[in-house]
Amino acid sequence: MSREICVFQDFLTDALRAKIDTAAADAGFAVHYFTSDRFEEAKACLPHCEVLYAQSPELLRAAPANLKWYCASSAGVDVYCKNDGIFANPDCLLSNSNAYGVTIAEYVVMVTLMLLRRMPEYTEPLRNHEWAPPRAIRSIRDSEITVLGTGNIGSNVAQRMRGMGAARIVGLSRSGKAREAVYDELYPTSELDKVLPNTHILVMALPSTAETFGILSRERIALLPQDAIVINVGRGTAVDQSALVDALNAGQIAGAGLDVMVPEPLPKDDPLWNAKNLVLTPHTSGNLTLGYTCEANVDMFCADLGNYAAGRPLTHLVDRSRGY
Amino acid sequence: MSREICVFQDFLTDALRAKIDTAAADAGFAVHYFTSDRFEEAKACLPHCEVLYAQSPELLRAAPANLKWYCASSAGVDVYCKNDGIFANPDCLLSNSNAYGVTIAEYVVMVTLMLLRRMPEYTEPLRNHEWAPPRAIRSIRDSEITVLGTGNIGSNVAQRMRGMGAARIVGLSRSGKAREAVYDELYPTSELDKVLPNTHILVMALPSTAETFGILSRERIALLPQDAIVINVGRGTAVDQSALVDALNAGQIAGAGLDVMVPEPLPKDDPLWNAKNLVLTPHTSGNLTLGYTCEANVDMFCADLGNYAAGRPLTHLVDRSRGY
Repeated sequence: MSREICVFQDFLTDALRAKIDTAAADAGFAVHYFTSDRFEEAKACLPHCEVLYAQSPELLRAAPANLKWYCASSAGVDVYCKNDGIFANPDCLLSNSNAYGVTIAEYVVMVTLMLLRRMPEYTEPLRNHEWAPPRAIRSIRDSEITVLGTGNIGSNVAQRMRGMGAARIVGLSRSGKAREAVYDELYPTSELDKVLPNTHILVMALPSTAETFGILSRERIALLPQDAIVINVGRGTAVDQSALVDALNAGQIAGAGLDVMVPEPLPKDDPLWNAKNLVLTPHTSGNLTLGYTCEANVDMFCADLGNYAAGRPLTHLVDRSRGY
Repeated sequence: MSREICVFQDFLTDALRAKIDTAAADAGFAVHYFTSDRFEEAKACLPHCEVLYAQSPELLRAAPANLKWYCASSAGVDVYCKNDGIFANPDCLLSNSNAYGVTIAEYVVMVTLMLLRRMPEYTEPLRNHEWAPPRAIRSIRDSEITVLGTGNIGSNVAQRMRGMGAARIVGLSRSGKAREAVYDELYPTSELDKVLPNTHILVMALPSTAETFGILSRERIALLPQDAIVINVGRGTAVDQSALVDALNAGQIAGAGLDVMVPEPLPKDDPLWNAKNLVLTPHTSGNLTLGYTCEANVDMFCADLGNYAAGRPLTHLVDRSRGY
């Protein structure tokens, strides 16, 4: 009997399925495909499967101990690292999909420009068909960018900010190192307090871990200059959201762009909705609709399936205790 | 008696005035400064002045025949090229200020991303504090860009689209040539019909002349693919606006971004306001508020003042009969 894989995904085109089929055949696996409207069938299939490729904590929780590898199609995996019994097999491998750098970097450039060019202030006049007078705008060209989190997303952001002619790009990571040479300066995250006062645009692309929880605290927001803009595309837990709302409404900083927040979905009466100079999007920066993102996602799974079958380490293995 | 310059501008900081003072002293000129609230005083000064640096057709029209050079702080000069008696001196030199490439290119990248990421469709849900589901988005990375008008603005757009990883960048100009080597392919504007069917993003950065009037006609809009986006930052006269509204509302193209239109300001009841998938801005893409733009503007004037005083040709001389 062949080894079996359960794929539980809605984004797969015929071409992407064919890619998975080929990789699975090469690795000696049979594949069972389910879309999210067939949860019970997928669940019934799991006792035969040693691999699950999905983005569903619920389905993972339903998987018995025969599961040896869970490949998440998301980049963030905090929901899988809570040590709350979500894995029946304590040694089950967890991998993620760093396929979102391109689309999230494009989101960051868009939101940065919307804030520098004060688009939120034009919303109401334009809605009322009013020809609003020009407001003083700013430019990426003259801006100093700080990228907090120099992984796939952060480095794609840095590359594009470079292409837009940013004045200086500083990267911050736990180790003070980055895989890609796209930063003017690199520091360990412990230097954050020294970097914030010289930051025009702070881009946060951090995983949700104990270390990153509340890293942009009220005290650190106060270190930012008045013309600073904060953009968060990592996880909402990294920001003291109430302090950010206060800083925005007081004009203590110039603006913010949030694609992630706490909680999601945001309740209708959350003060974030009405914060001044905020561009808020409903966790859409990295959604699995862009052709490039979908293809990269499948390519990463297929490459790691080859690694898995050959007994090599997974390229996108997550340290479940560390959380990324 | 020294030769005299009238400067009629609102955007000058002390540092920028000092630059002009230095350049004028070097060239043997005295400078008189006026802001727009002192129109009558500026007008009274003009009989002494041979140079006027302004962005005011009204003031130019009031200038007597002693005026030898009008330096417009705008890039577009169509309003000065109508041969309607605006120049009392028929041989008066006209120059423009190509200082807007950076800020307008940033505008184009912003609007392109807003349209590819379908931001107009999120406006209403977010206004109502609704957590809208993700929509299928697209990327600059996979897009084929056509830049119609390869001057300072067009080339700054091309550079940034390159930095964002665009798949292909085609430039179109009257001559089929461009000053900057930033295009994958270059064609004369006469090839436009062949290029449109392979265009995802059409960026229009043309001056308003008899040749460019209505260049994006109803017939040409029909040549664009259904996923095409049209962005106009040149002059509104280049687009058949009624045909564009029809194409947008019928879903014949995917979206448009207009910073220029006819007329400006747009009347409250114009159908453009309610066109589908349109990002409309009130001619703010190149406004004179960005530090870089203001400084470049003054630098261009000062450099041409040196040319003028030495009897050399102006770098930014406009051919008044050609219109750019």
